[in-house]
Amino acid sequence: MKHKGILIVVSGFSGAGKGTLMKQLVHAYDNYALSVSMTTRKPRPGEQEGREYFFVNREEFEEKITNNGLVEYAQYCDNYYGTPREYVEKQLEKGKDVILEIEIQGALKIKEKFPTALLLFVMPPSAAELKKRLEGRGTESLEVIKKRLMRASEEAEGIENYDYIVINDKLEECVSQMHSLIQAAHFSPSRNEEFIENMRKELEAFK
Amino acid sequence: MKHKGILIVVSGFSGAGKGTLMKQLVHAYDNYALSVSMTTRKPRPGEQEGREYFFVNREEFEEKITNNGLVEYAQYCDNYYGTPREYVEKQLEKGKDVILEIEIQGALKIKEKFPTALLLFVMPPSAAELKKRLEGRGTESLEVIKKRLMRASEEAEGIENYDYIVINDKLEECVSQMHSLIQAAHFSPSRNEEFIENMRKELEAFK
Repeated sequence: MKHKGILIVVSGFSGAGKGTLMKQLVHAYDNYALSVSMTTRKPRPGEQEGREYFFVNREEFEEKITNNGLVEYAQYCDNYYGTPREYVEKQLEKGKDVILEIEIQGALKIKEKFPTALLLFVMPPSAAELKKRLEGRGTESLEVIKKRLMRASEEAEGIENYDYIVINDKLEECVSQMHSLIQAAHFSPSRNEEFIENMRKELEAFK
Repeated sequence: MKHKGILIVVSGFSGAGKGTLMKQLVHAYDNYALSVSMTTRKPRPGEQEGREYFFVNREEFEEKITNNGLVEYAQYCDNYYGTPREYVEKQLEKGKDVILEIEIQGALKIKEKFPTALLLFVMPPSAAELKKRLEGRGTESLEVIKKRLMRASEEAEGIENYDYIVINDKLEECVSQMHSLIQAAHFSPSRNEEFIENMRKELEAFK
């Protein structure tokens, strides 16, 4: 049974550890490809072109939109963020499972365009733990932490739209758990239409 | 995160190896309970009360129906077949994943009553392999084999109603695959309503 790749959307609370999880997943298994978003926002110190984001100007981004070069895009705080189409489609064709990190609105747009996309929602084991992690970063003001917790509360409303929740308690276990969920998804009927169709034709031929 | 058990419905082509798979699964992992059906058909040589089936007469079966003592039931060739409710509910409550073997009509009835039931469809790697296995049994006439293949062709129409297909190529791999699919199912939002609700309440409290 040959599989085409699955498009995997990862959302979750800020502070739940999405970034680390995804990096570890790609590192631990060789069937994943990480999609890098394109943005018009300025790079922050330490960010690298093509690693955190592809940094472009407004004009270049809007040209991408016009040419249908993005799988989805959105605007936040006057900046564009989007997923370049070419990389995603090439990797899926190769049989790689392609991972995108994206918030809920984008996730729902993706699901509309790619009905077999797998939507994962990363959560800490408890809200108290989320608060602790945000505080533990030591880089955020109390006000920013409060904002993120309120944002988490909003995002939590949308969890039922996701296929699976991923509880990030211990990192290593969570990575392996995430891998299992994605592997399981490869066995849904909607992701095996060709195999099922062939089986039907073969059975039909016995009649 | 404490889980209640999941009700798992296993269907699939006759000759795909459902029975062996389920036995091996229950043997290899200790979180499963195998539901035993009740029937009015006579025991075949080698069949044991409470292992293959609970054998009852028509009157006893109809009493079970009247008392809502069955999760589902159906009639084939003048015999009743059904799933006793008490065992299923007790095991689920204990946190066990309960496995039933049932054909598609029953599977759909179960899904209606238990929306979080997990539906698995067992298939051989190819139709040619199915034919080979049916012939290899050496116990069936050509006519019976033909009938089973035609029945498989009918059943194949319903595969899209299942959550996952399970390809039984190598038994051991397939058992472990089946276990992974069931474990994955424990992480769907609909099977974690309580956990998600608690998270929401906790986050709300931070506001």
